[in-house]
Amino acid sequence: MTEAPPTMSEAGRGDADLMDKIVGLCKRRGFIFQSAEIYGGFRSTYDYGPLGVNVLRNVKNAWWRSMVQLRDDVVGIDAAILSPPAVWEASGHLESFTDPLVDCRSCQSRWRADKIDGVCPNCGGTDFTEARPFNLLFKTHAGPIEDEGAVAYLRPETAQGMFVNFLNVLQTTRKRPPFGIAQVGKSFRNEITPQNFVFRTREFEQMELEYFVPPAEAGTWFEYWLDARYRWYVELGIPERLLRVRHHTPDELSHYSAGTADIEFLFPWGWDELEGVANRTDYDLKAHAARSGEQLDFFDPATNQRYVPYVIEPAAGATRAMMAFLLAAYDEDVVAGEARTVLRLDHRLAPYQVAVLPLSRKEVLETMAREVLARLQPHFMCDYDVTQSIGRRYRRQDEVGTPWCVTVDFDSLDDQAVTVRDRDTTAQVRVPVESLLEELRVRAGC
Amino acid sequence: MTEAPPTMSEAGRGDADLMDKIVGLCKRRGFIFQSAEIYGGFRSTYDYGPLGVNVLRNVKNAWWRSMVQLRDDVVGIDAAILSPPAVWEASGHLESFTDPLVDCRSCQSRWRADKIDGVCPNCGGTDFTEARPFNLLFKTHAGPIEDEGAVAYLRPETAQGMFVNFLNVLQTTRKRPPFGIAQVGKSFRNEITPQNFVFRTREFEQMELEYFVPPAEAGTWFEYWLDARYRWYVELGIPERLLRVRHHTPDELSHYSAGTADIEFLFPWGWDELEGVANRTDYDLKAHAARSGEQLDFFDPATNQRYVPYVIEPAAGATRAMMAFLLAAYDEDVVAGEARTVLRLDHRLAPYQVAVLPLSRKEVLETMAREVLARLQPHFMCDYDVTQSIGRRYRRQDEVGTPWCVTVDFDSLDDQAVTVRDRDTTAQVRVPVESLLEELRVRAGC
Repeated sequence: MTEAPPTMSEAGRGDADLMDKIVGLCKRRGFIFQSAEIYGGFRSTYDYGPLGVNVLRNVKNAWWRSMVQLRDDVVGIDAAILSPPAVWEASGHLESFTDPLVDCRSCQSRWRADKIDGVCPNCGGTDFTEARPFNLLFKTHAGPIEDEGAVAYLRPETAQGMFVNFLNVLQTTRKRPPFGIAQVGKSFRNEITPQNFVFRTREFEQMELEYFVPPAEAGTWFEYWLDARYRWYVELGIPERLLRVRHHTPDELSHYSAGTADIEFLFPWGWDELEGVANRTDYDLKAHAARSGEQLDFFDPATNQRYVPYVIEPAAGATRAMMAFLLAAYDEDVVAGEARTVLRLDHRLAPYQVAVLPLSRKEVLETMAREVLARLQPHFMCDYDVTQSIGRRYRRQDEVGTPWCVTVDFDSLDDQAVTVRDRDTTAQVRVPVESLLEELRVRAGC
Repeated sequence: MTEAPPTMSEAGRGDADLMDKIVGLCKRRGFIFQSAEIYGGFRSTYDYGPLGVNVLRNVKNAWWRSMVQLRDDVVGIDAAILSPPAVWEASGHLESFTDPLVDCRSCQSRWRADKIDGVCPNCGGTDFTEARPFNLLFKTHAGPIEDEGAVAYLRPETAQGMFVNFLNVLQTTRKRPPFGIAQVGKSFRNEITPQNFVFRTREFEQMELEYFVPPAEAGTWFEYWLDARYRWYVELGIPERLLRVRHHTPDELSHYSAGTADIEFLFPWGWDELEGVANRTDYDLKAHAARSGEQLDFFDPATNQRYVPYVIEPAAGATRAMMAFLLAAYDEDVVAGEARTVLRLDHRLAPYQVAVLPLSRKEVLETMAREVLARLQPHFMCDYDVTQSIGRRYRRQDEVGTPWCVTVDFDSLDDQAVTVRDRDTTAQVRVPVESLLEELRVRAGC
């Protein structure tokens, strides 16, 4: 496990620099780019670059492994993003998924009523229209005619895909409560004020579990999942002092929830939501049963009773989780008298696990280095870098979180061994090429 | 490798049954459901169920492994789906990505001009309006005001994300041509006539590589990628008699292409496109350079020359690839006098690699079976099934393509060994629990 990085306590002191450093690093090294940047960027959407896509995949795969692969009470699905109005009528989103908007009467600009302080941020005006609800669903049309019958919405959450498929899953898997349906995928919310880099964006990626339980067990499973999800972040390297659980007060609760707790992370701007764990009760299944006319419940042959399961939902954001992992991993220290930036990412999340570095561009070295690379690629995401001095290349790998550098030097040609350097300790050991894969597998615990 | 399944030659004989069998199996066993089925389904969109999501993930991961992980000349990205009009103006999609539509003058229904045979399929009318172009881009609005400035499109291909990020990738990775940018993700096309199950749908998933090369090398790399991509399907179990390469005639070429070849699969309805490999020339980079004012080219210090790379694009559909793998794997044979259905999927693509089956519900057996399951889960996607007779359970696993069944019986309690059954041969061998993981790893070649 990664040690708690020393500088992280600064996040709690409102280290404004940390945010700038992460945003700068993400752009400079290819983690995250502004979308359509050559056209001036596009409305708070982001593209994940060569390193970012690796981290994002790792976050999602770690979640899937923990929530689906290692369990036999959870199955996955992958539902469509385009969905018909009926789903969002039943779920309540068409009616209630709104933010209050006002228009400034002086300059006609539009604002979220709860985010301005009585004065228009554009012109300083103080005369606003009445607040009215603005629906956050993205609307489009499917089919050749743009009429009401062709309206489709981009899903604002993956959760409804699980409720709508509840019967299908029950019938095809023979699961019975308690059991869960998991999904990872994109969702879309037409946020009025996207903010804080990839923390709140209109297009984002969710990792959601809907866990169906007998109603009497809802409280127990709520506590179970809250604990399990908190531990997931800790186990992947976020220090506990940067995490907390905050239970919602009754007036904060969503319309469907009998209880919600947020797992919060200490972002540079303060504590903010990383994941919500909610007791959604039988709200959704009942709503879809009523709207569709289907019987969305479970018959328990053991008790001879039919009931509508309660749902416990741990709902995480993949993109904001990635951001939290990067923030928590960011560190600056001094090695051999030289300052360096190092991302102390858990090796399972790092964009590359291994970098193979021939000491120079000499052909004999590159040939051997490429043989080493080919041995490791089936097992790890590997980088290969032959530019600049070896010291500079170590720094470059430290900065993006590569846990192990493998250096091929002139001695390697004689002793058929390479140097393995550890990112966190910078310790170097000589390892025979024959046992290199095994050595790295042991370090990675796989 | 999977043997070429015997029944597959039937696909070439237009086996209409095969399509029904696959669609039925997909629904019955939880591979693919119609989206929003409890609301009557939604406009040819589909949800991937518990088994389908596993296969789809396996297809996408096999592609990523082959195209990104095992190479050091390709990096990945994950660009946003929402994108501004400028991107699609530059790419030509806003102007040319259209189908010809006509309205029936009798009943006002709307049709694709090239798909009707002079008679309205709705009312039999023969009087139509002039054909006019219908743009296939899905349109929506981002932000609080629905005006022209807020227009966003759902991307109809992932490719433009690579072109728009060409400079970002060049600057952050130090790659130089020949090098590639790969992406897996959803795209959306407002098809007038979606058809053939998940073959052509409005929402679908792509696996695309844009490979940037010196213009003089474009021909060589086109051949390289056409061959590499063909072999990818073969290596994952599609028999060569179900695959062919078809070069586009000049009048078929897209506006950007100097040469395209399709890798086609023999679907039940005939040969159809699985993947297109195109020489997109420098069309896209030049178009975005002109529209954005950025210099999208490469300066080669070796020759002291600046040039706009040509692009070779292998563009595959993840969902239709999955469909082809299922069709090619479908088989019916007779085992010990009993007919069975078996999916001869490559183990890397199967929804589960291993099923753990306690012989009965006896607690001692279930306890041991769950211990075995826990050993295997970190390494394989596992199913656990305790319902019905063991013979029935083997058939159920055969039908969804599980290559290995592990049975825990009463002898297991004494000899600490289990039976491993092979899907294709149905051969059973006794394996000590201690060496079970190793045995399965050898069979899986990992």
